[in-house]
Amino acid sequence: MNQRLFSFIGGETGPWQITEIRAIVGEALTPSKRLNVVNGTIAQSNAAWALRGVISNERYAIRSEKNEMVAKQQAISTRPEATCATLIPIRKTAAWWALTQDERRQIFEESSKHTQIGLKYLPAIARRLHHCRDLAESEPFDFLTWFDYAPKDAAAFDELLGLLRETDEWKYVDWEVEVRVIQ
Amino acid sequence: MNQRLFSFIGGETGPWQITEIRAIVGEALTPSKRLNVVNGTIAQSNAAWALRGVISNERYAIRSEKNEMVAKQQAISTRPEATCATLIPIRKTAAWWALTQDERRQIFEESSKHTQIGLKYLPAIARRLHHCRDLAESEPFDFLTWFDYAPKDAAAFDELLGLLRETDEWKYVDWEVEVRVIQ
Repeated sequence: MNQRLFSFIGGETGPWQITEIRAIVGEALTPSKRLNVVNGTIAQSNAAWALRGVISNERYAIRSEKNEMVAKQQAISTRPEATCATLIPIRKTAAWWALTQDERRQIFEESSKHTQIGLKYLPAIARRLHHCRDLAESEPFDFLTWFDYAPKDAAAFDELLGLLRETDEWKYVDWEVEVRVIQ
Repeated sequence: MNQRLFSFIGGETGPWQITEIRAIVGEALTPSKRLNVVNGTIAQSNAAWALRGVISNERYAIRSEKNEMVAKQQAISTRPEATCATLIPIRKTAAWWALTQDERRQIFEESSKHTQIGLKYLPAIARRLHHCRDLAESEPFDFLTWFDYAPKDAAAFDELLGLLRETDEWKYVDWEVEVRVIQ
């Protein structure tokens, strides 16, 4: 098993209580009560859905951005006060994937300031990105981002999402769902 | 099944006769007589080894480089005269994967001229790259590159490999094998 693989399973069991599944673009996921997050995969008989992704190297961050992120960020699942979390599965369009590296970087950062926006909300909003597009099985989404934060930072989290969704990069998002959970 | 997944299976069956398995850095693969190349996966009982990878978006090419590649290249497995092929599985070091995007691009192209070197051998040497590092199962290699060419271009292929192996990029390769085959 790839040690960087994580599964997010919506169903009847798991430590997280699902408070809302909200379709942002495209369809929602099947309503479920609990979310299970596991490193690797498990056979879970009551699962309504299971999404998988792999943590990988960053595809856009340059050294100065990476250094700033590392200096500011907190690891996910390490803060007792971070009792709120949100899973955001995203799919990007074929047009996005047909762009070259320089074109994607231009949109991602020079135009949309994706990393700069995220940095503003560190360390309050912790984030872990998982890639799904290049798994052997055909996956419904391209990315799964898992955020956690304290209840007092929930409004800041909504602000972060609002800023990202106004960017040029988000014109290439054709499926996006929020799975909001609490402990 | 991800439509971009390919399997390379060394064993007793398959359309390609293995003429040599050569370890360039690190260990070789188990000696085998035939190579099978399939889109997707198959259960093959006589397999000595099976390597899998996914075709993905390019990670370094910029628009001008991509346009030049598209203008010059021939698709793999489309030329009756291309009766020679070579599978080259490669693994890169942890140090490579810890680099940021700008640092990897600097080494890959500005210093090592990986794309520029490959362009010199188009259309004679056709190439298809498969990514293994982010599959759900732990894979032995990070990349599988599959080349095909006519017998008259075999010396040019060796020259291409020689040029790439002299680059700064190749200092980050810690496992490389050649599986040479003919039809």
